[in-house]
Amino acid sequence: MSARLGRTEALSLLSLSLACIGILANTLHGDGEPLIASIAFSGLAFSFTYALIRWLGNAFMRAGLKGKDLSKLRQVEIPETMGAVCAVVYLLTTIVFIPWPFYKDIVAATSGGGNRDVVLELQQVETGRLLHRFPHSKLASYLSAILSLQSIVILGIGDDLFDIRWRHKVLIPAFASIPILIVYFVDFGVTKMVVPTPLRPYLGELFDLGWLYYVYMAMVSIFCPNSINILAGINGIEVAQSLVIAVLIVFNDALYLSPFTPYPHPATDSHLFSLYLLLPFIGVSVALLMHNWYPAKVFVGDTYCYFAGMVFAVDGILGHFSKTLILLLLPQLFNFVYSAPQLFHIVPCPRHRLPHFNSRTGLLECSIVEFKKPLAFPIAEALKLLHRLRLLRIETNEKGEVISSTNLTIINLWLVWFGPMREDRLAMGLLAFQTACGLVGLFIRHRLALWVFTQDNL
Amino acid sequence: MSARLGRTEALSLLSLSLACIGILANTLHGDGEPLIASIAFSGLAFSFTYALIRWLGNAFMRAGLKGKDLSKLRQVEIPETMGAVCAVVYLLTTIVFIPWPFYKDIVAATSGGGNRDVVLELQQVETGRLLHRFPHSKLASYLSAILSLQSIVILGIGDDLFDIRWRHKVLIPAFASIPILIVYFVDFGVTKMVVPTPLRPYLGELFDLGWLYYVYMAMVSIFCPNSINILAGINGIEVAQSLVIAVLIVFNDALYLSPFTPYPHPATDSHLFSLYLLLPFIGVSVALLMHNWYPAKVFVGDTYCYFAGMVFAVDGILGHFSKTLILLLLPQLFNFVYSAPQLFHIVPCPRHRLPHFNSRTGLLECSIVEFKKPLAFPIAEALKLLHRLRLLRIETNEKGEVISSTNLTIINLWLVWFGPMREDRLAMGLLAFQTACGLVGLFIRHRLALWVFTQDNL
Repeated sequence: MSARLGRTEALSLLSLSLACIGILANTLHGDGEPLIASIAFSGLAFSFTYALIRWLGNAFMRAGLKGKDLSKLRQVEIPETMGAVCAVVYLLTTIVFIPWPFYKDIVAATSGGGNRDVVLELQQVETGRLLHRFPHSKLASYLSAILSLQSIVILGIGDDLFDIRWRHKVLIPAFASIPILIVYFVDFGVTKMVVPTPLRPYLGELFDLGWLYYVYMAMVSIFCPNSINILAGINGIEVAQSLVIAVLIVFNDALYLSPFTPYPHPATDSHLFSLYLLLPFIGVSVALLMHNWYPAKVFVGDTYCYFAGMVFAVDGILGHFSKTLILLLLPQLFNFVYSAPQLFHIVPCPRHRLPHFNSRTGLLECSIVEFKKPLAFPIAEALKLLHRLRLLRIETNEKGEVISSTNLTIINLWLVWFGPMREDRLAMGLLAFQTACGLVGLFIRHRLALWVFTQDNL
Repeated sequence: MSARLGRTEALSLLSLSLACIGILANTLHGDGEPLIASIAFSGLAFSFTYALIRWLGNAFMRAGLKGKDLSKLRQVEIPETMGAVCAVVYLLTTIVFIPWPFYKDIVAATSGGGNRDVVLELQQVETGRLLHRFPHSKLASYLSAILSLQSIVILGIGDDLFDIRWRHKVLIPAFASIPILIVYFVDFGVTKMVVPTPLRPYLGELFDLGWLYYVYMAMVSIFCPNSINILAGINGIEVAQSLVIAVLIVFNDALYLSPFTPYPHPATDSHLFSLYLLLPFIGVSVALLMHNWYPAKVFVGDTYCYFAGMVFAVDGILGHFSKTLILLLLPQLFNFVYSAPQLFHIVPCPRHRLPHFNSRTGLLECSIVEFKKPLAFPIAEALKLLHRLRLLRIETNEKGEVISSTNLTIINLWLVWFGPMREDRLAMGLLAFQTACGLVGLFIRHRLALWVFTQDNL
């Protein structure tokens, strides 16, 4: 990877940045439309990330943050932990963006120009034409979101530097979720959930989960980052899956906005909030993906996986759509459940479970774990059953004992189903699967939810 | 340094932690006194930092974060960047502390016990017996303080990893100050200052600085971290000077609290706010100092210097005593002005300006910069004047040209004044100077301020 931007690249980034700055300057003259400002900020974040990844690559290599790509013929060293660059640009963007949605004494632009001191009452603002401003009280939750994201970046960098053990790693997002949980506790304390219709005779319409609600939020925060972190290992898959999820959430958010849903809708604010967190995320992730897609010129590091997962967790919790979020993470959930026997050492787990690179064909094949000792009877039978269901591939010796199995990850399963293929085709396949699952999930969310709830909140 | 805690250490830390947890549990039964909770949290933060520094030392060394102490006979490698451990524990502590001062619906303990649902009106709370609770609206500024501190930790770690150039480094705190500036803008926007009496005929009683006030706050944020970062280089000096400053600010804060000043006093809230940020800082810093004092078993890294400076900056800005803060940083200010000719390359500046270690005597001597080319006439004359004022020491050749000078740091100046001495005595001397300056500063602040202002706000 060249450390300098090419002429075309530099010109494109520069013109994109200038266009975005122009749009931003324009929002200052008008009502300061936060949604348009957010889009412009995302463009700026893309440009900065793209340029910084190039400029900082060598510095990362010098600091020892580098690795070899095992799935290539020529194994040159490339920079690692580039997700940290993404994350820092993202954090800066979301912080600088604060005045747009939250400025307290909203200055109304007058037609005469110049007289910008007319201050609207907050009530008038909320119901009036400046409909996209937030009530100022939401500032604390926005700040807590950024705090949680900063925490996960610090802990993620620690993980990338010190190679923390898996069983400690799992708890990293738990620490990072403390800010949003605390501010949620101090600021809202709403722990009631809507009860599905069939259960209403027993539980009533709203059920107060109490402190269990905090446990639930903590579990969402732990699940999202870790589930993205274990669906990883081939070029581009970490960033691309995060982008697919982000775009699907943005699509879902858009359903609650003006042309699709009449204003005022009670959930509009929550979904705008979600958009403001996601749009810059998409900006920085696209820039990273352009360097991480096959053949990768940089690696993203655990920092990125944690960071991306935490963006979704924070977004789902503070946007009040954490159940919808889980629907969009179904492939990750499947991968986690499917991996669990190896993660919890019920089945032996090798150090790496990446697909195996066949240097003769240039294709990826499923990687295999060999069982030195014979497996316990129920486990062996379970593996044989999964083999018959085509959910993994085992080999048996002449005595009928299971001597090896493909590793239990969705990436290997894809190779079991469709045979060896090149790294980018594998990534494309998984992404198509992710997209399809997500769209079905959203369809279920908005069409079939009426079976168990009295109404869709759309 | 042993990676394990000794038996006595482990027992002491454990009993301190248990005592603090007991105190915390007790605050939950009573009115939840935040000040007592803050002291208990600081004790916990001390214990965690102390233990973590020991446990993580080897991991830091393995990750390449290590360095040699040039001022020792045996130059063994010891862990670097240990300030990052401090900072992370500090951030976690300040986040977990949030519910104590800010919990919205304050639950009043009733004498009967058990009935904890009596909720006091906020007004009653502010003026009533729960006087140490904050109005909930201050939450955003507390969060912005933590955001700024997290930002500086991320950027500081980046600096320690990548060895950023000096001229880029200076701006690191500027980036980290963005969160407090933005939230200040969104949340308060108060940019007026009290005008000193002699100027009132011209400017009025209050003068609106407008956007210049933001420039001023940014400059305070840039000055504090950098000024601590350049008064560094001998064992313990970075942490110990920060501790002296922190203790002096705590002393000043205490002047505004209950036994000294009758409640309600308009500045009580600001100074409580300041205490809540400083007490845990003192906790983590003492733990670090115990490992960093002569002979140092760990180094603190730029991360610590930036972090400590930013704690003061944030504290001074949000506690509204930034001018008092500057009085406490007079030695740092002097060191900055004194160093400026070298920092801005008016006088040649070597890579390191640490005192020179004389391995024969075991003492530190002033380090010297030699001038290969003759200096320009006015600069040479200025150095000669400073030499005559005993503010540095130069050597001249037979032609009267200046051929060398002591490096322009307050540490070297101390050695010019008092001759070679051992590293810990040098540090002690500088700390005594820092303390004396600070006390005089505070005296000026509260006694002599009446000459230029109509009243002391105490």
